[in-house]
Formats: sequence, C-alpha cells, structure tokens
Amino acid sequence: MTHTDATSDRRPLVIASNRGPASFAVDEHGEVAARRGAGGLVTALIGALQASGGLWIASAMSEIDREHAGSGRIEIGDPGARYSVRYLAFDPGEFHAFYNEVSNRVLWMLHHCLWDAPRTPVFDAATTRAWNAYRRVNVAFSEALEEEGDADFLIQDYHLSLAPAMLRARRPGARIAYFSHIPFAGSEHFRVLPRRYRLELLEGLLGADVIGFHASAWAENFLVDCRELPRATVNLRARSIRWQGRTVRVGVYPISIDVEALRAESREDAVDEARRRVEAVAGGRALLLRVDRAELSKNILRGFLAYERFLERCAHWHGRVVFLAQFNPSREDVPEYGRYMEECFRAVDAVNDRFGRGDWRPVTVSYGDDFALAIAGYERYDALLVNPVFDGMNLVAKEGPTLNRRDGTLILSENAGAFPELGRHAVRVSPFDVEGTADAIREALEMPAVERARRARGLRAAVQRNRLDAWVERQRAALRRAGAGPG
Amino acid sequence: MTHTDATSDRRPLVIASNRGPASFAVDEHGEVAARRGAGGLVTALIGALQASGGLWIASAMSEIDREHAGSGRIEIGDPGARYSVRYLAFDPGEFHAFYNEVSNRVLWMLHHCLWDAPRTPVFDAATTRAWNAYRRVNVAFSEALEEEGDADFLIQDYHLSLAPAMLRARRPGARIAYFSHIPFAGSEHFRVLPRRYRLELLEGLLGADVIGFHASAWAENFLVDCRELPRATVNLRARSIRWQGRTVRVGVYPISIDVEALRAESREDAVDEARRRVEAVAGGRALLLRVDRAELSKNILRGFLAYERFLERCAHWHGRVVFLAQFNPSREDVPEYGRYMEECFRAVDAVNDRFGRGDWRPVTVSYGDDFALAIAGYERYDALLVNPVFDGMNLVAKEGPTLNRRDGTLILSENAGAFPELGRHAVRVSPFDVEGTADAIREALEMPAVERARRARGLRAAVQRNRLDAWVERQRAALRRAGAGPG
Repeated sequence: MTHTDATSDRRPLVIASNRGPASFAVDEHGEVAARRGAGGLVTALIGALQASGGLWIASAMSEIDREHAGSGRIEIGDPGARYSVRYLAFDPGEFHAFYNEVSNRVLWMLHHCLWDAPRTPVFDAATTRAWNAYRRVNVAFSEALEEEGDADFLIQDYHLSLAPAMLRARRPGARIAYFSHIPFAGSEHFRVLPRRYRLELLEGLLGADVIGFHASAWAENFLVDCRELPRATVNLRARSIRWQGRTVRVGVYPISIDVEALRAESREDAVDEARRRVEAVAGGRALLLRVDRAELSKNILRGFLAYERFLERCAHWHGRVVFLAQFNPSREDVPEYGRYMEECFRAVDAVNDRFGRGDWRPVTVSYGDDFALAIAGYERYDALLVNPVFDGMNLVAKEGPTLNRRDGTLILSENAGAFPELGRHAVRVSPFDVEGTADAIREALEMPAVERARRARGLRAAVQRNRLDAWVERQRAALRRAGAGPG
Repeated sequence: MTHTDATSDRRPLVIASNRGPASFAVDEHGEVAARRGAGGLVTALIGALQASGGLWIASAMSEIDREHAGSGRIEIGDPGARYSVRYLAFDPGEFHAFYNEVSNRVLWMLHHCLWDAPRTPVFDAATTRAWNAYRRVNVAFSEALEEEGDADFLIQDYHLSLAPAMLRARRPGARIAYFSHIPFAGSEHFRVLPRRYRLELLEGLLGADVIGFHASAWAENFLVDCRELPRATVNLRARSIRWQGRTVRVGVYPISIDVEALRAESREDAVDEARRRVEAVAGGRALLLRVDRAELSKNILRGFLAYERFLERCAHWHGRVVFLAQFNPSREDVPEYGRYMEECFRAVDAVNDRFGRGDWRPVTVSYGDDFALAIAGYERYDALLVNPVFDGMNLVAKEGPTLNRRDGTLILSENAGAFPELGRHAVRVSPFDVEGTADAIREALEMPAVERARRARGLRAAVQRNRLDAWVERQRAALRRAGAGPG
C-alpha cells in the first residue's frame, strides 16, 4: 500500500534519543556553544527535522547540558537549521542506573550476547532498583513527548525501549516509530532476561506502529521473541504483530553514511597531519587497519590473536605488514570494559614481543578520540578488519571502502548488520574463528589486484546505492501507511 | 500415517553411543565382569535391544574396556539379556581430542550456551586438529555400523553428530534415527561455531531419517539452523527438511525415567544409611535439596547466591531450613569445571560464614558419586531446586517428585527440557534471576499444604504418564514411517 495521507504528512516530527544531536561546550572565546554531534544518524535525523521544523528531545549528558535543560526549547545555532532541542535532566544517580546499569550493562550485553552464562548476568536486588530507574527515565521521556501532541515520533534505541507504550497510553492517536540501532537477541539469548523484564520490554516496544532494525536477522529475532506474549499474534512472513487491536509493523531499514560529509572531513587540515602519522607507522609496508570503539562486542582480542597466528604461519609477511588499531575510548565507567581492554593490550604486547625486531613493530595501537587518524587509515589500508561478535550495523565497514585509495580489502564478520549489504564484496569471517580470521588476513593481503579492484568497486557502489536520506523517509512512509489503517 | 511394514519391522536394531551400556570392572572375586550402567536411557535402549537381539556399539572408555575391544561381539552377562556389545578402541590422544576437546569443550558448551563470548571460544589450530580427530572417530563408528547391514540404527547424542551422514553414504538403504540428549543451540548461538563446522554438523545429522530431541524448543532451533544450508528446504510447521532427495523428520520424544527401577533402588540397604545421614544434616528442619552433576550448565553458583539472598530477606527462616547439595563429580579433566566448582564452594563458605551459628549450618555440600544420598534426599526434601541455565531434559526433576514423601515443591528452570511436561506443577524460575529464585525458594517453602499436595500429585502423574518404553517405540515407529516412503 503506497497511499499517503497528505494531511497527516504535515504532522510535526519529534525525535527522542538518549544522546542529543548537539552538546554544549565552552568554545575558544569562552562562550557556551552547541557543538553538533558526528555521525550519519545525527545527519539523517537533523535533515528530516529541518524539513519539518521539528524537535529533538534528549538526556542532558553533561553539566553544561543540565544547565540548559528544562521545559524550554533551544534553537540550535547551526547555519540553516530550523529545529529545536530540549534536554531532560536527571538526578546523576538515577541517570547512572538508567544509562550504565540497565542500558549498557544489561540491554547492550543482552542484545550483543556478551555474557558468560555460567556466571553473568546476575539479576539481583540492585538490578531491580536500576530497572525501576530505567522505567522512570522512560516515563519522563514519554511525558515530554506527550506534550508535543499527535506528532510523528521517532524514538531511538534501546535506552528508550519502554517509552513507545508509555506514549501510546497517553496519546493513542500518536504515530510512533521506534528504531533499534543494535542487534536484537534471538529467543534463546533473550530468555536470559527474567520473564518479568522481557515481557515489559516487548510490551514497551509494541507501543510503536513501526519498529525498525538495521538487518533482517534482528527483525526476525524480535518477531520470534514476541511469540512469548500470550496475547500477541505474530506473522513472521508479513513481519507484523497484532497487539491490543493494532497492527505493529517490523521493518528493515539499514542506515547508510553521509558520503559527502565524510569526503569533506577528509579534506580537513588535521587529516594531512594524520596521514603523516599513518605513513610513519606503515613506512611503505602493507597496512592492516581496524577502527573501533574500545568495546567488547568489537572482538578486538580475537583480532590480535588472529594476526599473531597469521604471522606465525606466514613468515614471508614478517617485516612487510603493520597492523594499526585505532580505538575510541568507550564506557570507561563500566568495569568489564577496562578489564577487557587490558587483555587486548597484553595480546598486542605478546605479538610485538614475539615477532617485532629493530626496524619493525608488528602492531601499533592508537587509543583516543582521533577521527583524523581513522580517515587517514581508511585512505591507506590494504586490508580493513571488521570482525565484531555481533553488531547492529557497523559503519566502519561503510566509511573505510568509501575513502580507501588502494583497492583495500574488507574482512567482514558474518554477524555484522552490514553483512547482507556488503558481504559478497568482502572476505567473510566467523568472528569466533581465530584460525579462519588468520586465513582471511592472508587472503585479503594476497588477493590479486584485479579481484581487489572489482571488490572495492562493489563496496563503494553498495554504500552509495543506499542513500542516507532514504533511511528516515522509509520509516516515515511506513508510519503514514500505518496511520492509514490496518492493512 | 500409522501404517507399518511388517517385513521392515524385523530389521535388527543397532545402537551407537559414545558410552556403552556396561563397563568392565574387576569384581570382588578378582574376575572381570560387565557392570551395567545406571539411568533410564540405558534401561530404555536395552529393553529395545533385548526384544530384537540387537547390538550396541560404543567407545572403550577404560583400559579394561579397551582389552575387550575389537571386532568381536560380547554377550553381556545380564540375566535374561539377548544382546551384544562391541567396543571400539581409540588411541588415547585421539579419544581425548574427540571426547574432551570437541564433544565436551566445543559442542556441549555450544548447545548449552556456556561461553563468555568476548573471550571464549577461540577456534584455533588446536581446534582444527581436534575436529579432525572428532571426524575420524565418527568415521570409525560409521564403519562399524555399516558392517551390520540394513538395520535400524539408533545413534545417540552429540559425540556422534557426523556419523548419520557417513553411514548414509555407505548404506543408502539404512534406517537411521539420531537422538540429541542435550539442547540444540538456536541460530544466534549456533553461529558461534565457524561456518565450515556448523555446515558439516548439520549435514552430518541430516544423514538420519528421524532426528529426535527431548523438547520442542530444541527441535525448533535445529530446524531454524538448517535454513542456513543452501540446498535444504525446511518446513517448520511439519517439522521436516527436504535434503538430498530425502525427507528428514524432526521429532520431540521426551524421555522418562524407570519408575519401578528407581523405587527398587530406594529399597537398597545403602539408602537406609543415607537416610540417617540426611536426617543428621536436616535435623528436623525444612530441607532444600539439589542433586546435580558438578557442571556449569546446572547453574550451581546462582543457586547459592539465591539462597543467600533468601536468608538475607527471610530472617524467620534462620535456623529452620538447611540446603543440602549433592554433586556428582564431572569432567574433572576440563579446566573450566574445576574453576567453576571452586567458585561454587567459595559461595557456600560465604553463606555459612555469614548466617551459620553454633547449632545451624545453612548449607551442606556432598561431593562424590552417592546415588543413595540422592535417593534419601529425594524422599525427604521440602523444596527441590532444579535451576539449570539450559538442560536437554533434566531427570532429577522427574526422580525427585517420584520418590518424595513430604509433598515437596519443585522449583524448575524455564530452560529445562522437562519444563513443558512439569512446569505447571512447579514454581517457575528464570535461571539468571537470582532475585526471582530467592522469591521462588520462599514461595516453595511457604506454600500452603493443600497446594503443595495438589502439585506433588500433578508431578507424580505427569512422570508416570510418560512411560519409558514408549520413548524407543515412538522413534522406531517414526523410522518405519520414514522407510515407507515420502509422506
């Protein structure tokens, strides 16, 4: 059904997410200024907001954000922007429980399957308290959204899983789309969550009219999980769920990147300096690159083990290849992350101690927020390793091939949400398979030039074919169809 | 279709499993004698063999087994038995790789979801070598089975996942049933296995005509996993798979226990002495019991944490309840098991140190092969804790209620294969939910007498309704139907 209702089209757009499109910071003149966040998601959503003059509601993440929080809207000083931001401020303890304890330690770990099942998780009295905080923050978001009337609501990600049903209860006529940017756990893993929580979570999401995921695997997992709800009727083939007299549509909307903005960033002065740093590391050798948040789901440890195994088997590559790993610090407040990164750094030392020699250091790690280095690495790599355990999408797999200038090869985990779009142009790996990943590194580095060029073209074309602005448009079109009645 | 082919019915029965129905040992007179294994599975299969004069092929597990191994059949000296056993002997290193490295450390962990995904498993060169040994042992089994002609073959469990297809290649006309006694990993977890292994595993199993599981959840997982095979056509509703011109049936055959044999064991002298030991521990207090192999999937650690939380919240139970935990040693060669049990024992010490007082020790652990103690505990418990992370079936949940004399309550994990049969008479727990399990312990101990009695009757009836001899019969009937052509 492609019929659209012209009247409904004019509904204002309201976005809700934990992290807002901009954060406040003191600029070089000592003045408070809004600094726009990076990344395709913010670009896509701001583009849609600018077209409709809408509003973005987010949590105040910093002290300066909190000073600007309240019921007022803030016009963002972005040239040409016609949208507002509203920050919701929470008590720091409440926000910690919502953000770190539930969103990141429970839901992120759940959907990425990162637990050590004999030991973790343990759902105890502290979890109960944190879950109550998570619920209250979702209530606060739904109250703020309710004030906007019967708008089109785009609720973003696992932090706000309960908000759709809370908003639906307050505004039965609202059009609500929810988007999950991470994987969704299949039934076996989803059952790690105690029943009372998993039912609350599913019922929370089903307040939306449209529920979107980056990949069909996550959409199917969600649909199968919904079969546990006694009163839901799940249609796997149609990707829909009958629930409380409504039809909820589940859609697959793989996000893309803003190719033009990325190319513009690569022309910044800082990248020139970063190119020199990359060349100082690579020194004319082949370059294996990874760019990731310092994050358990990225499978950093097995990447280094696979590189070690590759060097063990391929003496002809000694002195001829360098592995540059760029990590953005992430969730340093969560103890699991610190422990994991220590293990990763020990693995790096082991490779360098075992194989390094005077003029050759096999692995170089860069730890810090350094997008210029990532860009310079993207241009220069011969092979890009993207081997997450599970990943909702993975934009590195799209950014790298877009900027790469050497027909570099992409090594891609079959469990990345980007795999259905890019897999046939990549070297496929099972992320747990260290031996297979060592094979893949060799295959990527030794691939004949004609084949490398063919695949590099395929990757660039696949990224460009999926336009970023279509991502919001497809969700809004699905919302309009949902609003046009049961279909 | 219930038509049976009388001619085909007369096919001999051949069973294959890693562990045989009997092991050889030196008896009290210094003579070598076959000692029959315990458990309902052996009883069920021997019953079927005796009716058909069949053969059981197994690995030689001990030195004495190995001396009896070879191509010859051994008549088992069991009164009234009319069946034979043949032992296959393997080089100890080869057997270790097959049994510990692949069967127990890879496949058991895979299907019970016991990994710590950011770190384990690591599939490396050692895995490749061990997998080759696993494949060779499966070849040896299929060669031994082939010698028996076009029999009815019952291949048991995850040790022999590849044997069905190997036997099918050698004997296209064989009727082959495979049974998995453990869970089967859902697609997300199954993908932890590298693709080359998981395709080999699925193709190995699909050599069978009938593939059986204890619970529909495991059957559905297997069917969904098979959708990854490019040339398989999976019918989820009919529970069948078209594969290489054949139709493979997937069935759910929950095994039961031999109620009469269990009652007979409870009349042994050793149980009298064990009753006195149990009473010395309980001392007239309420008894919370668990009986398990010392095994990561049994979720022993969270059981002690939940009991600690229960005591923390319920001061009125201090001094009035005792937790007796009977553990059979298991896989002491596998390092993960030793580490896990140490953590469990530390948790026991923590509870006893925190809450114990002169005349009351809150937890008592018995570690050793002591079925008499288990039986005495079964008779005496007020609540039985069965909280596995995942479990193919769990026979403790059936044995306990069969022998219990106090209308004891069963606390049962929703992830046990026994849950569909017994769950509505039990107190349900999510195994990861320590807070919920603490609630369940209290609910079980404080349940009104009328309700306890009603549920105890329900449990006994559910166990007795599912007769053990039907377990093999249903599989053989499915085999006959499969042999009668595509349906």
